[in-house]
Amino acid sequence: MTPALIASLQNPQLKRLVRLRDRRERLREGVFLIEGARELSRALQAGVPLEQVFICPELHSPEARELPWASLPVSEPATELSRAAFEKVSGREGPDGVLAVARSEPRPLPEPLGSTAVLVLDGLEKPGNVGALLRTADGAGAHATLLVGDGLDLGNPNLIRASQGSVFTQPTAALSQADALNWLRERGFTLLACTPHAAQNYWDAPLSGRVALLLGTEHAGLSAFWQEAADLHLSIPMLGQADSLNVATAGALVLYEALRQRAGRQPLE
Amino acid sequence: MTPALIASLQNPQLKRLVRLRDRRERLREGVFLIEGARELSRALQAGVPLEQVFICPELHSPEARELPWASLPVSEPATELSRAAFEKVSGREGPDGVLAVARSEPRPLPEPLGSTAVLVLDGLEKPGNVGALLRTADGAGAHATLLVGDGLDLGNPNLIRASQGSVFTQPTAALSQADALNWLRERGFTLLACTPHAAQNYWDAPLSGRVALLLGTEHAGLSAFWQEAADLHLSIPMLGQADSLNVATAGALVLYEALRQRAGRQPLE
Repeated sequence: MTPALIASLQNPQLKRLVRLRDRRERLREGVFLIEGARELSRALQAGVPLEQVFICPELHSPEARELPWASLPVSEPATELSRAAFEKVSGREGPDGVLAVARSEPRPLPEPLGSTAVLVLDGLEKPGNVGALLRTADGAGAHATLLVGDGLDLGNPNLIRASQGSVFTQPTAALSQADALNWLRERGFTLLACTPHAAQNYWDAPLSGRVALLLGTEHAGLSAFWQEAADLHLSIPMLGQADSLNVATAGALVLYEALRQRAGRQPLE
Repeated sequence: MTPALIASLQNPQLKRLVRLRDRRERLREGVFLIEGARELSRALQAGVPLEQVFICPELHSPEARELPWASLPVSEPATELSRAAFEKVSGREGPDGVLAVARSEPRPLPEPLGSTAVLVLDGLEKPGNVGALLRTADGAGAHATLLVGDGLDLGNPNLIRASQGSVFTQPTAALSQADALNWLRERGFTLLACTPHAAQNYWDAPLSGRVALLLGTEHAGLSAFWQEAADLHLSIPMLGQADSLNVATAGALVLYEALRQRAGRQPLE
């Protein structure tokens, strides 16, 4: 059987793909979209269950051509779309002709072993910031990222893109505030709040044990719930005119300082 | 004389403001737009020369109401726009009713005193990344930021916004590669390249002197020119699946590590 080519912009499958850009549709169907070769590659690495794959070979980047097309873990071969059809369903400028529908299946958080860092994101609204933090959490070897509050779903296309697919490889769970706090307390994590006027500088704080870094919204900062739960309040030195850093930048500094301390580095003179 | 209220969407002043979103128009006129109360406030702090100010009081945020409206350094009072007119010229969702036309006047870079860091951004294409780096450079007390290559102009509205106005307070100059290199060499800066496979970890490198951090495009990394000019090649540990960090994250880690080392911190055990 020759794989079908979808060229009609009225095709019901295309219309469904467009609908799935909407969060409510994603939640209703229990699926989300993965666009881009790098992102699909990370999802395959992480064993994300795929339902269907759509391709447009004439748009394929070199990275897209190198995906394991002959052995994708889906029951049907990839459905080919015309260029116009692919551009209609793509959420990107300059799409690379790779789009998959994946099933949302919450995965249990792994148990931490020894010293490690966990990232807690409460109510963050900008998918680019959450994605950037997941990419950094992966880089810094963070144990997991807990997404608290209902600001964003992990199937948000801009979040997936900004994470460059790290949302699939970094263990991530959506939890309530209370469940997140219990999970962390039961495992002996020290809770760290970044607060602009805290007396203790982040690089002077002991971060080499089990630490959970709490980050709040771009707009209002960390909620009272986490401010009160925190064991340590840390500040990042601000030497200029601005009164804060971007939340993704602040998170990166503390995660990598924790990694530096775990690596037991001596100072340079 | 009562200040004019512009309500007609065909008004030539509005049409000019819309045209100024285009880079060529900004360069042709030698002006750029500053939108938002925080951004205008930083521009006022930094003495950026303003030509004209437009307001829509019904859109004003609390921060916008606190601007020194009675003493703005412009020859004419602020021109009031109707809500529809302001929304037409705004580049934002949820505008706060503050927009100014400012003159582009290159300012000489200050001379460095003692140990400090300079950021060199070569060919970066995403205004959000350049803006985030300027905000971080301000926070980390970097001496200056050199913008090399013609990818972006400092009047780019998304750059100004992502910098939260730090583009005005952080000393910044657009230079050619050769001029940037000369400026740095004449002042004894050590040139640092972040390279994925460099043997030396950034936190093990001596960063407490005069250091220039070289960052290249999101897509292709640092150009051969800077790779060859670099005195030290540094890597950032990547413990997960991703092979790189966002360029704004990588820059923040090295700038703040340099600050930590200049602060002479001892390690924690």
